[in-house]
Amino acid sequence: MKQIGVGLLGFGTVGAGVADGLLRNQKTMAERLGVEVVLKRIADLDVTTDRGISIDQKLLTTDAQSIIQDKDIQVVVELIGGTGIAKTLVLAALNAGKSVVTANKKLLAEYGAEIFSVAAKNGVDIYFGASVGGGIPIVRVLREGLAGNEIQSIHGILNGTCNYILTRMENEGLPFDAVLADAQRAGYAEANPGLDIDGFDTAHKAIILASLAYGFHVPMDAVLVEGIRNLNSMDVQFAAGFGYRIKLLAVIKREGNQVEVRVSPTLVPMTHMLASVSHVFNAAMVRGDLSGDTLYYGRGAGREPTASTVIGDIGDVARNLLSGQPRYGRGVSIANEGKFSMRVASEITSKYYIRLMVLDKAGSLGLMTTILGRHGVSILAATQQEHPESSKMGHVPVVMLTHDAKASEIDCALKEIFDADVVSELPVRLRMI
Amino acid sequence: MKQIGVGLLGFGTVGAGVADGLLRNQKTMAERLGVEVVLKRIADLDVTTDRGISIDQKLLTTDAQSIIQDKDIQVVVELIGGTGIAKTLVLAALNAGKSVVTANKKLLAEYGAEIFSVAAKNGVDIYFGASVGGGIPIVRVLREGLAGNEIQSIHGILNGTCNYILTRMENEGLPFDAVLADAQRAGYAEANPGLDIDGFDTAHKAIILASLAYGFHVPMDAVLVEGIRNLNSMDVQFAAGFGYRIKLLAVIKREGNQVEVRVSPTLVPMTHMLASVSHVFNAAMVRGDLSGDTLYYGRGAGREPTASTVIGDIGDVARNLLSGQPRYGRGVSIANEGKFSMRVASEITSKYYIRLMVLDKAGSLGLMTTILGRHGVSILAATQQEHPESSKMGHVPVVMLTHDAKASEIDCALKEIFDADVVSELPVRLRMI
Repeated sequence: MKQIGVGLLGFGTVGAGVADGLLRNQKTMAERLGVEVVLKRIADLDVTTDRGISIDQKLLTTDAQSIIQDKDIQVVVELIGGTGIAKTLVLAALNAGKSVVTANKKLLAEYGAEIFSVAAKNGVDIYFGASVGGGIPIVRVLREGLAGNEIQSIHGILNGTCNYILTRMENEGLPFDAVLADAQRAGYAEANPGLDIDGFDTAHKAIILASLAYGFHVPMDAVLVEGIRNLNSMDVQFAAGFGYRIKLLAVIKREGNQVEVRVSPTLVPMTHMLASVSHVFNAAMVRGDLSGDTLYYGRGAGREPTASTVIGDIGDVARNLLSGQPRYGRGVSIANEGKFSMRVASEITSKYYIRLMVLDKAGSLGLMTTILGRHGVSILAATQQEHPESSKMGHVPVVMLTHDAKASEIDCALKEIFDADVVSELPVRLRMI
Repeated sequence: MKQIGVGLLGFGTVGAGVADGLLRNQKTMAERLGVEVVLKRIADLDVTTDRGISIDQKLLTTDAQSIIQDKDIQVVVELIGGTGIAKTLVLAALNAGKSVVTANKKLLAEYGAEIFSVAAKNGVDIYFGASVGGGIPIVRVLREGLAGNEIQSIHGILNGTCNYILTRMENEGLPFDAVLADAQRAGYAEANPGLDIDGFDTAHKAIILASLAYGFHVPMDAVLVEGIRNLNSMDVQFAAGFGYRIKLLAVIKREGNQVEVRVSPTLVPMTHMLASVSHVFNAAMVRGDLSGDTLYYGRGAGREPTASTVIGDIGDVARNLLSGQPRYGRGVSIANEGKFSMRVASEITSKYYIRLMVLDKAGSLGLMTTILGRHGVSILAATQQEHPESSKMGHVPVVMLTHDAKASEIDCALKEIFDADVVSELPVRLRMI
C-alpha cells in the first residue's frame, strides 16, 4: 500500500491530539482511504515537555525547516497558530510543493488571499477544516456537500467562550463580569479574553465561511464586529421574557451581488435550533437555495474534536495525492474575486431590540415613538419592564422590538432620543435574527 | 474544460428537481469542480407530463437501457425507487462501467451487500447521499468528515412523517389517529402510511448509516423495529410532564465487536438538541471518539433538499472521474464484513418509561415494585398520574422511569405484572435515550 508522509509543525494541545489520533487510527484510516498515512516528524521549540502521549522521541525536532525540506513528507500540518512564524512556515511549505493542513483561522482570515494564491501557483492543496467549528465539519460541508447550492445565508455560533458566558448569564441571572471571571478560573476563557469576547475570533471564522460560500476573500475591515463585553444581564432577562435567547452570532448573507458579514450579540427565538446550542458548543445554520436550512452542531474547540477534523483533512489530502491531483483548496476561495461587493455597516438591515431607560415625565414615550417613526423605524412590540433598581432611580426600562430597519436609521433615531433628554442613559440596541 | 455526461433514470419529483438544479447551477458547478457536468438524457415511462421545469424535449426517452449503453454518459442517477426495476437498472449500469448515484434507501438496505460488491468488481463509484436525511449531508460526513473517528453511536430522527405526527401530538394534545388523518390530507403522510409509521423507513436509513459507520452490511432482520402506530397521547403528555419529548429514534451503537441497531419511539430530554427537532425536519447526532457529539439537521425529504444532495454526489463522482479514480463507494460499506456481530433484541439495554394502569386495590403498587426488583429493574422515579378518564374506570395510571435494564428483563417483569391481575390493561413501555 502507498504511503503518505505527514509532518507536524507545533506539538501543543492540538498537535499532540493529532499525533495521538494518527498513531491510534492508522489501521482504520488505511482501510478507509486505501493509503497509509504515516507520521514522520514533529517540530516544536519545546520537545521535552511530556504531552501525555507515547511517541517515539526520534520523531521530534526543533527544526521546522527540516520537515519542510523532507522528501518523505508530502503533507505539512501547521498547528502553531498566529500570523508570525506560522505564516512564514506555511508559505515555505507551499512553495516547497507540500500540501498544507492548518487550523489557523487568524492566518487565513488575514492572509487567506495570499496563501490561497501561493497554493494555487504551486499546484498543492491547502485544507483548513479545523479553522472553524473544531469538530464540526462545516468547512467540508460548504466546500463539498452544498456545492450544488447557492448559499443564501449562514448564521453561526462560532465561539465557545462567548456561548458559555451567555448560557450562564441566562441560566443563572449573573452579570457578565462575574461569569467571565468564573470562566477564566475554569479555563473556558483566556486571561486576555478580548479576542473572544470582543467578537474578533468569531469574525475570523465568519470571514473563512464567507470566503468558502462566495469564493472571494472578505477583508477584515469590511466586517461589522460587536462583542458581548458590554452586554447587560437585564437585557438577557428581558429578551427571555419575550421568548428569545441572546447569542453571539456571525451572520453571513448574500443579496444579489452584495455580501454582508457581521458579528453581534443577537436575539434568537427559543424555538430556533440555534437557541438550543448551549455552553461551549458551536453550531452553524446554512441556508442553501436547494437544501433549505441545514444545521451543524458540535464541539467548536478542544484537543480531540479539533484533532478529528485535522485528521479528516489529512485523509482528504492523502487521497488527493494518491490520485495525483490536488483539488479543493486550489483557488476555491478566491475564484469569484471582484464579483461581489461588501455591504457597509450602516446599510445592514435587521429587526432590533431596543431598551430605553425612560425618565418618569409626561410625554416621554410619545416623543420617543415619534422620533423612531420619523426615522422609518416601526415598532412590533413594546413593554414597560419592571426592574427593582430602576424605579428608585427615577426611570423605567422600556423595551421595544422593531420591524426591519437599517443600522443607520436606528442609530440616528436613538441618538436623537438621547439628545432629547427623555432617557437617563444611552439606549441599548441589539439585533434580532 | 472536460465534460462528464449524466443520465437520469426517473423523472418524478426528485428527478425533476435534479434536472432543474443541474441546468440552473451548471456554471457554478463547473467553477467549483473544474469539470463541466452535462445532463445528457432522462428516462421515464411517462415523458409527457409537465414537470414544471423547462427542458429540451429531446433529452427525454422511455428507454432506460439507451442511457445505460450511452458512451457519452459516465454517471447514471437512479431516482425510480423500490427494489424492482431500480435494482435491475442499477446493477446493469454498474456492470456497464457507469458510476451510479442513487437516493434509494430500500434498495441499499435490502441489497447493499450485492450492490457494493458489484460496484467494487467494476471499479466504479456508487454514491447514495440522498438515501438518508434528504438535504442533510450525513452520509458524506460519516464517509469523509469523521473518517478519523471510531463512531461510538448515532441517534437519528430520520422520518419526517413520524416527526410531524409526534410534534403535533405533543403541541396540540391530539391522538395519533387524528393527526395521521390530518397529515394524510396535508400530504405529509402516504395513503398507505405503514412504511413510515411502523418504523421501516427509519430502519432502512439506520441500516445505511450503520453500514457506513462500521463497514459491514446490517441485515434487516437483525434490526429491532417498533413504530409509533400504537403510541398513546397520554404517554406523550406524561413524558412532557417529566421533561421529555417522544421521538421516533434510530439508535446505532457499538460496544466492542457488538453493534446494536434499533428503531423505537424514545423519550428524549427537552434540553437535548434532538428534542428541538420538530415537524418534518430530520437530524442525526453522531458521537465519535475524537469529535465528541456532533449533530446534523435539515429537511429530510422534498424535491429541492434531496436534489441538492444528489447533485453534490454527482459533483463528487465527476471529480473522481476527472482524477481517473473512483474511490469512496468502492467497498467502503463492506470492508469489515464478518468482524462484528449484531446484538439481539432481548439483550438491548436502555432506560425505560413504564405506564401501568393500576387497579385500585391494596398492595398493588408494592407487588409491582417487588416484581420489577426481582427481574433486576430498578426504579429512578415514579408518580401516580391524574387522568380524567381513569378514575371513572377504577384504575389509575402509574408512571415509572427505570435505570438501565435489558429488554428481556423489562418484558418478563411486565408480563408477570399483567398476569398478577393488578393492572387493567397491558403495560406500556417506551425506551429512553
